[in-house]
Amino acid sequence: MAIRAAAVPIDPPERAARGKSHGRLSISASLQPRDLMAPQRVKGAWTARVITLFPEAFPGTLGLSLTGKAQDLGLWALETFDLRPFGIGKHKNVDDNPAGGGAGMVLRADVVAAALDQASIGTPTDRKRWPVIYLSPRGTPFSQAMAHTWAAADGVTLLCGRFEGVDQRVLDAYDITEVSLGDFVLTGGEIAAQAMLDATVRLLPGVLGNQASTEEESFSTGLLEFPQYTRPTVWADRPIPDVLQSGHHAEIAKWRQAQSEAITRERRPDLWAAHQRRKP
Amino acid sequence: MAIRAAAVPIDPPERAARGKSHGRLSISASLQPRDLMAPQRVKGAWTARVITLFPEAFPGTLGLSLTGKAQDLGLWALETFDLRPFGIGKHKNVDDNPAGGGAGMVLRADVVAAALDQASIGTPTDRKRWPVIYLSPRGTPFSQAMAHTWAAADGVTLLCGRFEGVDQRVLDAYDITEVSLGDFVLTGGEIAAQAMLDATVRLLPGVLGNQASTEEESFSTGLLEFPQYTRPTVWADRPIPDVLQSGHHAEIAKWRQAQSEAITRERRPDLWAAHQRRKP
Repeated sequence: MAIRAAAVPIDPPERAARGKSHGRLSISASLQPRDLMAPQRVKGAWTARVITLFPEAFPGTLGLSLTGKAQDLGLWALETFDLRPFGIGKHKNVDDNPAGGGAGMVLRADVVAAALDQASIGTPTDRKRWPVIYLSPRGTPFSQAMAHTWAAADGVTLLCGRFEGVDQRVLDAYDITEVSLGDFVLTGGEIAAQAMLDATVRLLPGVLGNQASTEEESFSTGLLEFPQYTRPTVWADRPIPDVLQSGHHAEIAKWRQAQSEAITRERRPDLWAAHQRRKP
Repeated sequence: MAIRAAAVPIDPPERAARGKSHGRLSISASLQPRDLMAPQRVKGAWTARVITLFPEAFPGTLGLSLTGKAQDLGLWALETFDLRPFGIGKHKNVDDNPAGGGAGMVLRADVVAAALDQASIGTPTDRKRWPVIYLSPRGTPFSQAMAHTWAAADGVTLLCGRFEGVDQRVLDAYDITEVSLGDFVLTGGEIAAQAMLDATVRLLPGVLGNQASTEEESFSTGLLEFPQYTRPTVWADRPIPDVLQSGHHAEIAKWRQAQSEAITRERRPDLWAAHQRRKP
């Protein structure tokens, strides 16, 4: 488990729970030091907990740019839980052959359950306050609406699969929601987790410098974005459309709306149909 | 530009082109050493070229597990092109305010064009043999079919955006296809690029150990995958379904097909409708 916790002070009761005794000799009987075993949530920060066989994949791209700066500022926290130590036997096996035959390997229910138990420490049991997600192509497609829902929660736990999948019984027993990044197959859930966290974290208060950017963008209006232009005014014999240089704000807004509608109609008949249905 | 090229020998003409003289004194007049300027494709390997402001985000998760091993084996190559050096002026500005006003910044056409020119060296101009893609929520949704198309090409160039987008004129002038990871907004194209490359690379010959895995999985049949189970036979009072332990292959196949159909119908009416339409 690697915690890249932000520079947010941990209050005294939490500090005590971590086993820092105050003048009292404390002897732990546990096989693993409590500091390593008991995950501590950064007070008040939205937290992502990721269960994965590749903890070194995190924070990855999330550690750069906006999401990385927000992490450094303590606006959110990322905690990874390595699945491997929960494995069975000397070789810490996490998977086994699929019952009934077939290619690939399936993650064991008991192994995943132990990791989920560990990752649940200190989190609300209400799945609305803390969704527990398995990243799988069989799931509900991830959407901007889902990103908003997650951002409004206290945090989220993401289970990254590998191989052929996870034993169905642990998904049932732990009331886990399956979510898909899209209609394609990845080698594992790690990149999907990063994509979903990126989409969610940028919606957290204070992460985007300019709040207007979230409001205007794709999917907030149900339409695709209008085309953008910037200097130089003429490039490769191509001028910026006149209207954008007119300074006439109402005309610009009208042109952009028309462009958004035309592009959505052409590229995404599904979004366009939904947009038409929403009209009064 | 960082090339994590695979351990595949470069043949003599390419070696010569890199400026390694054979007993002849070679003086380069270029401002930048040719080794840094002229990208060299690994002979025969499927190649991804990524234009980004965050080259350090790559290979990221792609460097681990199956895709990382495949890269080490030379089954594919990843080349990043840092957009920053193509920027304008002392500060290497890559973006400017949107024409017509609005929040955010737009990547400049001239800057992006220079990077695209560099990334096109040594690649086929036929967009079918080498798709050139801009990652954008306005694009066609990425799909398993698109991953198969890309895997069948010689390689792909991916332009990662940031901010509000890219000047539309460069997308038009360079015949760039806009592709979207899904209906959600990311802080940049880097994670989207990694997801698409992961989905594509695993389809390249030799990358997956067990070819059967690609055949059976979601989206190859147009249905979601059936549930999987593995040892232990009983976990938390939940047994593996009897049929999977029967050893009766025809019954198992029938049960799995029924499960796939039920899950698809319940979770993805859109896929189910498409599946029904395909039936003879």
